[in-house]
Amino acid sequence: MEGRLDGDVVRVGGDARQRYYDSSGYGRPTGEGVALAPVEAAHLLFRGDLDAVDGLGFREFLAIEDRLVVRFLVYRDFRERGFYLSPAREGWVDASALSSDATPDSHGGDADAQAGPDLIVYPQGKGPWDDTIAYRIWVVGEREPITASSLGKCVLAVVDEESEITYLDTSCPTIDGSTTNVLPTTVSGDLLADRAILWNPPDGLYEAAFYGQRLAGRGAEGGPLQLSLVETAYLLGESVIDLGVDLATVVERGRRVEGERFDRRLAVYTTLREAGLVPKTGFKFGADFRTYADVESVDDLGHSERLVRVLPADHAFAPRELSLDVRLAGGVHKRMTFALTTPTGDVDWLAVERLTP
Amino acid sequence: MEGRLDGDVVRVGGDARQRYYDSSGYGRPTGEGVALAPVEAAHLLFRGDLDAVDGLGFREFLAIEDRLVVRFLVYRDFRERGFYLSPAREGWVDASALSSDATPDSHGGDADAQAGPDLIVYPQGKGPWDDTIAYRIWVVGEREPITASSLGKCVLAVVDEESEITYLDTSCPTIDGSTTNVLPTTVSGDLLADRAILWNPPDGLYEAAFYGQRLAGRGAEGGPLQLSLVETAYLLGESVIDLGVDLATVVERGRRVEGERFDRRLAVYTTLREAGLVPKTGFKFGADFRTYADVESVDDLGHSERLVRVLPADHAFAPRELSLDVRLAGGVHKRMTFALTTPTGDVDWLAVERLTP
Repeated sequence: MEGRLDGDVVRVGGDARQRYYDSSGYGRPTGEGVALAPVEAAHLLFRGDLDAVDGLGFREFLAIEDRLVVRFLVYRDFRERGFYLSPAREGWVDASALSSDATPDSHGGDADAQAGPDLIVYPQGKGPWDDTIAYRIWVVGEREPITASSLGKCVLAVVDEESEITYLDTSCPTIDGSTTNVLPTTVSGDLLADRAILWNPPDGLYEAAFYGQRLAGRGAEGGPLQLSLVETAYLLGESVIDLGVDLATVVERGRRVEGERFDRRLAVYTTLREAGLVPKTGFKFGADFRTYADVESVDDLGHSERLVRVLPADHAFAPRELSLDVRLAGGVHKRMTFALTTPTGDVDWLAVERLTP
Repeated sequence: MEGRLDGDVVRVGGDARQRYYDSSGYGRPTGEGVALAPVEAAHLLFRGDLDAVDGLGFREFLAIEDRLVVRFLVYRDFRERGFYLSPAREGWVDASALSSDATPDSHGGDADAQAGPDLIVYPQGKGPWDDTIAYRIWVVGEREPITASSLGKCVLAVVDEESEITYLDTSCPTIDGSTTNVLPTTVSGDLLADRAILWNPPDGLYEAAFYGQRLAGRGAEGGPLQLSLVETAYLLGESVIDLGVDLATVVERGRRVEGERFDRRLAVYTTLREAGLVPKTGFKFGADFRTYADVESVDDLGHSERLVRVLPADHAFAPRELSLDVRLAGGVHKRMTFALTTPTGDVDWLAVERLTP
């Protein structure tokens, strides 16, 4: 059969509706015929189920539009995995399926526009005539930046330079834990460069609440406790410690070593502690924090569940950095979680993980 | 015993030479006594083997110098692991031990200055009176940037914000492989956006030389071959393919999508291919390339051995990015390798891996 290009659709007449739509979920019915999105027409040409579009074969048709090839690669991949899917176009799929903006109230319209999914994938065995959706797919090339605030509901299909596809599922998790502690007050210590040392800390501060590290090293029984600058600032704000300097001095020192990033990390640290989690450094994993949701004692500490990277809410990810973080987190059985800090000091959570459809 | 601060050393008299130097390798002998570096004095104070320095105890002494605490933490760690070590000072250790600059001819003096090691560690059972060295240790806080060109001979001891230490061994590897191929000429194809497609490629181009990916997906027998833009530019330069456009056009398109980085990646790709390795995308690992040293056939491909990240030679690492890359590479049993590209188009290789002393 032959199709003809009409604006942004390919129209096919005759029994195309039955052949393409009814039997395999391609396109949209228009009376007897169907309207196909270019990506659908490309796939039918690739399979040999459509002979030509305005005389163009698969090879020539792929060239009509720059982004058609990457869309085609993802479309084909889902078809080969046994899914039916539709282009995410107004009027083609339910409007509710089109927005993939995580938190509409907190983000701008351009993020929505950028994040509008390209493809709507139906559960296996379902199709466009059903009203259930498996995935909202946003197709991006590996070099296209992705605004953090536009993620949270869609699945990124990143097509790398060699046309391999990596699927990254994004969600907005609720972060909470069960760790509670009664803390002492005005424990004395010294501020040394970018850390603090408590020379005679009360035992519970480390063993139960998991603040700091023993100066004598891991596993040491008692003795002086070292605090990171972010732990220091938090505990000073809570009046748990007294270093003979005020909070502003500590924050100033933090800014000196890492700029405004220190303020954002302190905001995230505080949010995590208040949510009942214990954040510790994620340095060995290249992250800001690793978190423990339920700490009763350092002696029987489980594995940390999340790796947290602190980013400004307007951060634009390079797909490669996402791939790096998610791959590493998966390898150590933790969930990669981004803490998006807004100028108002709020924290939006974004979890990203590898998906195999 | 008591010591006294004299310039940048702590002098201890009496039988200090025998107590500290002869029996445990602390300091430098000065007649009967010894001259101790502050980090050595701090450790002796910490152990209680020295009572005070000018009346200062361990707590007060730690505060005399901003970087003393991080140096102390690393010094103590090696002592606890059973090593003797010396501060890397002119006249205290052999001059040859002091330079940790990888390729003196190609880098500036300030890199040397920055990279001069802090501590010289002797093999277990050896000491300052022997002339063998186990590690040149460069102590850095997790927030101190590290010039790439100053690495290659030293071990980085990164003290993170919670005072945990990560050791990263750096070296300048020779990169070579055994992959050789006789390539066809003027294979025709199309340039599509940021990739190319060869519609009727000769079999060997993929199966033997491992260029591109089958359009029909992994494992497909024959059919059109997709090339990444960097593969396209390389093969065009070698006159292997003919896309009806010249090399400049492809390079221009590469710069459009990733700026001058494309030129650097092409230089590294070319260097790797000429050295007998097969570079493929490292996207799934967050790297530029993964490399195979000995490819005879794609059908019995082993695991790739290296992950390669392309960086300008003057790049300054944040310790956290090094930690992320090295941790990921270790987790997938590959060697993290940085390709440092100089303005002249040369490539210096830098390998970094986790070390447990």
